[in-house]
Amino acid sequence: MTDSKTNQGNFFEDFRIGQVIRHSTPRTVTAGDQALYTALYGSRFAVQSSDEFARAVGYARAPLDDLLVFHVVFGKTVPDISLNAVANLGYAEGQFLKPVYPGDTLSATSEVIGLKENSNKKTGTVYVRSTGFNQAGEPVLSYVRWVMVRKRDEAAPAPKAQVPELAPAVSPDVLGAGCPKIAGKLWDDALAGSAHRFKDYEVGERIDHVDGMTVEEAEHMLATRLYQNTAKVHFNQFSEAKGRFGRRLIYGGHVISLARALSFNGLGNVFHVAGINGGRHVAPLFAGGTVFAWSEIIAAADVPAQSDVGALRIRTRATRDLPCGDFPEKDATAEEPGVILDFDYWALIPR
Amino acid sequence: MTDSKTNQGNFFEDFRIGQVIRHSTPRTVTAGDQALYTALYGSRFAVQSSDEFARAVGYARAPLDDLLVFHVVFGKTVPDISLNAVANLGYAEGQFLKPVYPGDTLSATSEVIGLKENSNKKTGTVYVRSTGFNQAGEPVLSYVRWVMVRKRDEAAPAPKAQVPELAPAVSPDVLGAGCPKIAGKLWDDALAGSAHRFKDYEVGERIDHVDGMTVEEAEHMLATRLYQNTAKVHFNQFSEAKGRFGRRLIYGGHVISLARALSFNGLGNVFHVAGINGGRHVAPLFAGGTVFAWSEIIAAADVPAQSDVGALRIRTRATRDLPCGDFPEKDATAEEPGVILDFDYWALIPR
Amino acid sequence: MTDSKTNQGNFFEDFRIGQVIRHSTPRTVTAGDQALYTALYGSRFAVQSSDEFARAVGYARAPLDDLLVFHVVFGKTVPDISLNAVANLGYAEGQFLKPVYPGDTLSATSEVIGLKENSNKKTGTVYVRSTGFNQAGEPVLSYVRWVMVRKRDEAAPAPKAQVPELAPAVSPDVLGAGCPKIAGKLWDDALAGSAHRFKDYEVGERIDHVDGMTVEEAEHMLATRLYQNTAKVHFNQFSEAKGRFGRRLIYGGHVISLARALSFNGLGNVFHVAGINGGRHVAPLFAGGTVFAWSEIIAAADVPAQSDVGALRIRTRATRDLPCGDFPEKDATAEEPGVILDFDYWALIPR
Repeated sequence: MTDSKTNQGNFFEDFRIGQVIRHSTPRTVTAGDQALYTALYGSRFAVQSSDEFARAVGYARAPLDDLLVFHVVFGKTVPDISLNAVANLGYAEGQFLKPVYPGDTLSATSEVIGLKENSNKKTGTVYVRSTGFNQAGEPVLSYVRWVMVRKRDEAAPAPKAQVPELAPAVSPDVLGAGCPKIAGKLWDDALAGSAHRFKDYEVGERIDHVDGMTVEEAEHMLATRLYQNTAKVHFNQFSEAKGRFGRRLIYGGHVISLARALSFNGLGNVFHVAGINGGRHVAPLFAGGTVFAWSEIIAAADVPAQSDVGALRIRTRATRDLPCGDFPEKDATAEEPGVILDFDYWALIPR
Repeated sequence: MTDSKTNQGNFFEDFRIGQVIRHSTPRTVTAGDQALYTALYGSRFAVQSSDEFARAVGYARAPLDDLLVFHVVFGKTVPDISLNAVANLGYAEGQFLKPVYPGDTLSATSEVIGLKENSNKKTGTVYVRSTGFNQAGEPVLSYVRWVMVRKRDEAAPAPKAQVPELAPAVSPDVLGAGCPKIAGKLWDDALAGSAHRFKDYEVGERIDHVDGMTVEEAEHMLATRLYQNTAKVHFNQFSEAKGRFGRRLIYGGHVISLARALSFNGLGNVFHVAGINGGRHVAPLFAGGTVFAWSEIIAAADVPAQSDVGALRIRTRATRDLPCGDFPEKDATAEEPGVILDFDYWALIPR
Repeated sequence: MTDSKTNQGNFFEDFRIGQVIRHSTPRTVTAGDQALYTALYGSRFAVQSSDEFARAVGYARAPLDDLLVFHVVFGKTVPDISLNAVANLGYAEGQFLKPVYPGDTLSATSEVIGLKENSNKKTGTVYVRSTGFNQAGEPVLSYVRWVMVRKRDEAAPAPKAQVPELAPAVSPDVLGAGCPKIAGKLWDDALAGSAHRFKDYEVGERIDHVDGMTVEEAEHMLATRLYQNTAKVHFNQFSEAKGRFGRRLIYGGHVISLARALSFNGLGNVFHVAGINGGRHVAPLFAGGTVFAWSEIIAAADVPAQSDVGALRIRTRATRDLPCGDFPEKDATAEEPGVILDFDYWALIPR
């Protein structure tokens, strides 16, 4: 009943180690995309909000939000990597390598770096390293993700299991490439909205980001289409009504962006996501749910070649329908409130 | 109770054959509009998505989506042509005459080319040829539509019926003007997301576009306002609650754009809508409905002055709440799932 | 339980007369913001819609909608002025001082010009004059608003009450600075969508703007985040469910923009909001409500240094779920339909 001209996506047995996939639909990102990003999340970081502020500290102009770049690159990989995915299991070794400005054109490739069939023979885990490029062919973002993908045919032979060794965290030595040399002296705390610099944060410190944001169906679908992400579960209520949850699932990356935007309240000078150490979507979000977030500072480091900024390693949990005043750690389920995202990243902040 | 300064719209007896109406609200279309278009439909055609891809094949940069141009021009005609319409009956003789780029300013005129009172004396059909222009005064789009319009006064005398002879289809001889000369050799199938070129499609071939997209109230209203389309039935739940369907009707053009975006899955290299042969909104769409689509290739033709592309004549049906694996032809009703749009267009694809 | 790094906002006792607050998050406004503004309200005023039309009458290009500028500046003041507000009580002495174009960067300051504790000792009224600046440091907008703000501590001593004397209306002598010299002869009524010029409006005239617009949760949240307005009551259904109304409140400025967009039908040539004499949000709007509007011309004046335009002083009422054919004046309550906004402004129109 399906037509050979339509994309069925790859199944587990279609991947092989070392395979490099060039993803389709290059995308020129514009001030229009950034405006939508602001409307979707209400992000208030000064560098991404103001050309003037960005120029004052060293950028050519306001760069696109780092996570907007992430979502656009991620979106390109979906038709090839995760159209038949059961679950998005994790991220690692993410690095933002170059600022992306309005007018740049993003494209993406993925290399298959790991494959492991599950014992039920119905699914397997696929590990890919995805890289986003600008129009000059320069890498702007690289990250590993792994997804559980269905097999087309349970009887299909599986390749020998090969699981990549992934760094538990991005080394601070490679951070700082994704932004120009920042002139800390020209950083204006009042305009940035926070008096707190690198030295003001302590390892072990926990911050409740206080505010909550309720998500509507129209919002997450607008976001996910903006990223040209084609994962079916986000869009089709007709089929999801008969599915496991009875409703559309919200793209996990939408939660990452909501948590990052909420984190402005407490982390206002943390201007640049530099690395993604790890991340798990531990429970689903549905429309009508309200997202809260809290963060813990889990490390602090110098950044080579950036004398005016330091790096904070931040672990942010986002919750569904659970304020974070007492820093909750219990995972949500589809029914019960709790943590839905556990995200571990490096970010830069002026000294 | 109504005020003379407000626009009551034209009624059937206000139109006369040969009348040319200059529509109000010229509109500069921008990268912001294109970003919203992407967020509303998730369209993935490479030419409209990437300046780099567009330049490589011959465009000055990524042009606006053809249907975004259509909707903006259509929107301008609403306050003069269809504010008192009962139904939008059909389209014909649509031609896209020139690419429209971000920064261009669109304006529109309509000429009344046919009038026919209905036997009930309450309504009549108005045929107009509408033309969209860019800031240089060059026509970018021309199409005929006919609508059933209420009479202000049943006793008003009707003009002699005059129904225009409309071509059953746009001649392929005039296609290809709406895009630059395409360099087929520089077309990158992997980036475009499809391996299928002109020769790979056969007349009679049917393609299920597989995916479904559920529409929310906020989405269709954002779209319809973006087009500055003022038709009341899309926006006012207070009055529609007392109306025939009890709820807001979704702008038919929203369905055309959804169907075109869904058609990427199967028609990924079909980069340019060149002509509209006909189109009917056969049943309404309401918020909460899920749109699916399938297409049939009904003709293929050479395009004079474009050696590297061919034209496919495509008949696309969009359905409400009905997957298209078995190519359904039954019209929906307000209650029952089925076909809601029957759209016949010419589109270009590289050889 | 709260963290010292998060913004708790200022309480009544934190303000002092003469205090000047520089607000955070400068914002480069772009064609993307204007596209979203069009999608949110469907505004059709030709000057803001078309670069060509705007240039013909004297602008450098299409300026941003005046109220978009207002909302962005207003949004910046929220974290410092009204995070702990109980109610937004009024506006006065608003002046639009310079056109804002896509690419300009807006920042804002507020000066505290009045303080008055309420007799219950729990709250007090704070009067601020807020000013928005462009990247050259030129003021583009100035207005006074007053809000009722909670005290952190009822026992905190209150400053001596000081209530500013506010002009009942902006003097027409200062209008006209916020736009270039308009070439009235080059104003094209057909393109603008109205045949009515300055002389066609009479003091005392009432105009029903006819159309109604229903508002969805996704829409007002997209708008309010676009303005980087952080007032909690608009976004957090989890906490609002337990609040006074059981649901999210819609930002009052959203209603102002809806009313202004609806007013095109009757005031199509009224191209520029030049001054805000006063404004009150007399009742709340919730998602699902339908907004209607009517206006009364309450004064007309010459504009020094603008020979081709005149100023109309317009009082616009917006209603919830109440058509305005008989010009309703009764305030809505949370439950009953009626007037929700009473807005008194000066606007320019060609002679």
